[in-house]
Amino acid sequence: MPEPILLAFGVSARMRGRLEALYEVHGPVGGVRPETVPPEARHARVLITIGGHRTDAALMDALPDLGLIACYGTGYEGVDLAAAKARGIQVTHAKDANATSVAEFAMGLVIAASRDMTKGERMLRAGEWPNRKAERMPLVPGLAGQRMGIYGLGAIGMRVATRAAAFEMEVGYHGRAPRDGIGYEYHPTLRGLAEWCDVLVVAVRATPANRHAVDREVLAALGKHGVLVNVARGLVVDEAALTEALEQGAIAAAGLDVFEHEPHVPEALRALPNAVLTPHMAAFTLSAQRAQAKVMLDALEDFFAGRTPMNLVAEMA
Amino acid sequence: MPEPILLAFGVSARMRGRLEALYEVHGPVGGVRPETVPPEARHARVLITIGGHRTDAALMDALPDLGLIACYGTGYEGVDLAAAKARGIQVTHAKDANATSVAEFAMGLVIAASRDMTKGERMLRAGEWPNRKAERMPLVPGLAGQRMGIYGLGAIGMRVATRAAAFEMEVGYHGRAPRDGIGYEYHPTLRGLAEWCDVLVVAVRATPANRHAVDREVLAALGKHGVLVNVARGLVVDEAALTEALEQGAIAAAGLDVFEHEPHVPEALRALPNAVLTPHMAAFTLSAQRAQAKVMLDALEDFFAGRTPMNLVAEMA
Repeated sequence: MPEPILLAFGVSARMRGRLEALYEVHGPVGGVRPETVPPEARHARVLITIGGHRTDAALMDALPDLGLIACYGTGYEGVDLAAAKARGIQVTHAKDANATSVAEFAMGLVIAASRDMTKGERMLRAGEWPNRKAERMPLVPGLAGQRMGIYGLGAIGMRVATRAAAFEMEVGYHGRAPRDGIGYEYHPTLRGLAEWCDVLVVAVRATPANRHAVDREVLAALGKHGVLVNVARGLVVDEAALTEALEQGAIAAAGLDVFEHEPHVPEALRALPNAVLTPHMAAFTLSAQRAQAKVMLDALEDFFAGRTPMNLVAEMA
Repeated sequence: MPEPILLAFGVSARMRGRLEALYEVHGPVGGVRPETVPPEARHARVLITIGGHRTDAALMDALPDLGLIACYGTGYEGVDLAAAKARGIQVTHAKDANATSVAEFAMGLVIAASRDMTKGERMLRAGEWPNRKAERMPLVPGLAGQRMGIYGLGAIGMRVATRAAAFEMEVGYHGRAPRDGIGYEYHPTLRGLAEWCDVLVVAVRATPANRHAVDREVLAALGKHGVLVNVARGLVVDEAALTEALEQGAIAAAGLDVFEHEPHVPEALRALPNAVLTPHMAAFTLSAQRAQAKVMLDALEDFFAGRTPMNLVAEMA
């Protein structure tokens, strides 16, 4: 008898095919809640979800046979880890399967935001180049010789750091503690890092503790020539404070792939010329998706074979 | 008596001030031609211009005391070097003063074009993210593990190469001859390089000989998953063939900072979703402009002091 599993979101046709070959697949139920669990899926042993969805104690109680919550991406911020632990439910995620793709995209946002790239493109596409509007854009600093501050030197942050170093940038970072054997300068506070750097890249894992860690004060410390890039999670940045900082020139520009209330991006933010705004697509590559799919399928296989999955979230290991 | 000099284009107020402190400044005359030389500027000893303007024998003959043609940027494709040599006129340019800024921007175009960044931004700004349009974009390869082909391994090309290597890309190049002591793979033909690589970056100096070097055949060799980036000069790429290749999916995407008839960009090209199009802004940084200004002022000082300027164009040295 194939084991029952429940999808909280619509996976690709290819992934669905692979799951159906091995398991009894229920769903997808978009953003599944206790009251929307299909009756025939009540005995699901695995919930396949993403970090952005809420997976709380009530939902776990509505799925009494649940043994594994498998997050497809790297995020698991919506999963109540304490509730899962109390119920003996394992939680897995994609770990660093998409780190290279996200770091590449982050550097793209750094360049695009620092160099007014999409502002220039909008001008050109609107037919305004012959008016010499482009030539009148204020000059910006190049990246070489500038300081890159990385908030969260994990798998993504490290890859951003090596790329930034190749751009002749000086790299510093902030995190809970300095990392051993790392040559980049550690800053004990986020505010101190923001004061030190020209470009601040948020690559930290989102937790309840770092909600709005990038606030008005940090943005003020980054300063009017500073650039903020976020490829972590929207909730790490106070979006209202950021919008105001961009409107008032308290910082120079931002490159954002993540937002507080995805897929909703406030009109005030969407109207800003000095922001590069992309729809949470930093991991949208073939290589990242294949790697994420592989580690998720491996986790299910391990779980049903009674082995501990390799990609348990750190707090559960 | 200050020496007379003629500006073919409008320099910044700061540069004008520096020039006026030392010389008798005439112009600017946008795209100066023999018949538009102001009578009082006929005896100019220096013409300050840019590579995109035509500086031919007729113009040189209209400026009989001309001894130096100082190109502000790195390009000098509009200068008739043979005519200048025949008249004993020196020609200088910015050499590699802006190479780092241009290489940074080129990598930005590589990432933006390869990763559908500006396509994603247009979707988001148009309010289409909630329709889940972004999630339905076809997945693209990441950069890591892909092959970067560089056409023209000069000061810019070398800087693109080191950055691409940090992105875990394999680097190959084409130029007139293999460069000594360089570990990147040399390809004796541009078509061979295009067949080999996934991303082709044009960083070659434009000459009459390489006009339309990137033609229909080279684009076909690059192939339907291939990405073209041009930060050199528009005339190196057959723009009509490129537009058709992008329209028909003969290549995947392009990132273009230069065009055949700047500032005019054909409507058909501006309408394409799979191109990132910027208004020749790769050198628009404070550091590049300062470096360019410095080498140009140095060239004038050397010239009037009877010394050979350090930044003579290679063919004149």
